[in-house]
Amino acid sequence: MKLYNSSTAPNPRRVRIFLAEKGIVVPFEEVDIVKAVNRGPEFRKKNPMGTLPVLELDDGTCIAESVAICRYFEEIQPEPPLMGTDAKDRALVEMWNRRMEFELFEAATGAFRYRHEFFKGRIEQSPEYAEICRRHVIASLAWLDSELASRPFIAGDRFTIADITALCGIDFSRTSGIRIDPGQKNLSRWHAAVSARPSAKA
Amino acid sequence: MKLYNSSTAPNPRRVRIFLAEKGIVVPFEEVDIVKAVNRGPEFRKKNPMGTLPVLELDDGTCIAESVAICRYFEEIQPEPPLMGTDAKDRALVEMWNRRMEFELFEAATGAFRYRHEFFKGRIEQSPEYAEICRRHVIASLAWLDSELASRPFIAGDRFTIADITALCGIDFSRTSGIRIDPGQKNLSRWHAAVSARPSAKA
Repeated sequence: MKLYNSSTAPNPRRVRIFLAEKGIVVPFEEVDIVKAVNRGPEFRKKNPMGTLPVLELDDGTCIAESVAICRYFEEIQPEPPLMGTDAKDRALVEMWNRRMEFELFEAATGAFRYRHEFFKGRIEQSPEYAEICRRHVIASLAWLDSELASRPFIAGDRFTIADITALCGIDFSRTSGIRIDPGQKNLSRWHAAVSARPSAKA
Repeated sequence: MKLYNSSTAPNPRRVRIFLAEKGIVVPFEEVDIVKAVNRGPEFRKKNPMGTLPVLELDDGTCIAESVAICRYFEEIQPEPPLMGTDAKDRALVEMWNRRMEFELFEAATGAFRYRHEFFKGRIEQSPEYAEICRRHVIASLAWLDSELASRPFIAGDRFTIADITALCGIDFSRTSGIRIDPGQKNLSRWHAAVSARPSAKA
């Protein structure tokens, strides 16, 4: 088993943190995204979307999409649970993880992808849409601050994959000049707590 | 238990098809999206995002996000499995479902949302980005046609949630004038097969 990784891209970080929280060690193979090796024909045999990370199993099966990779590890090693504990909790963690994806992570990567020089010629860009994404992130941080008034973690009393998605989205939004407002006390408290976990450095 | 539904929006259709495939009957309550009842303060107590569908459990818990609702039903009634059968299969179904979301469903809804009169004043629009989304859907249909040369369903030999997401995305892309090209034989065969299932009318 090995994980095709990029040490600078936001999606692989989600999986690295997930693995660190589980205490699972998987060999990494760094893929050079600056040289667009992930978009070349060889890598596309592993993942036609050309995205990272990709988990290659010993039987040659390639699993792409960060949350699908996390799902695999949650299934083979349920403890500690990061994707919920029973039917209702699993659904609520999925709901919160998706909210963190759509309201934060996708908006943060959109603000970068649709405007930054790095993606020029790689995707069809739209600075207008990048700006919509940037404002979306800022609005989402204010909303999330209010949500976190009532509980320690995004999905409740327990650290879950939703916290990982939110952390990676918020930290990546720095590439668009976005920071948590110090007046956002609940969000600041949460961000300090999840950033202090050893997994955040994975 | 009840499902807050919109009979015309694409996301609730995903859950209705999922329930029909499972043979589960849940009472629906139609929410008037034309009058934006889903965006009002009362409905936002159930789902702060103001989106549909929402599943309200008997204890008052509200589960939003289509796939989170599907996850709940998959957990409480595993048969027939629509989200995978073991660790590897669950990860692969999740991968394919996410590909169908990002490459088809989100692009199809983006092509509509960011340009159509219906969303004017509801979200920040960008006709430029809507056009990128429209071209994204067209490119994805060509790619999916090649993928379906080797298997009957999106994620393999079995009908899964990935087929539901793809069907709802493709059918909704008609609102942007997109149709499957008759030369796309594999995709046409797949679309005819999944559309012929009784669940497609749910």
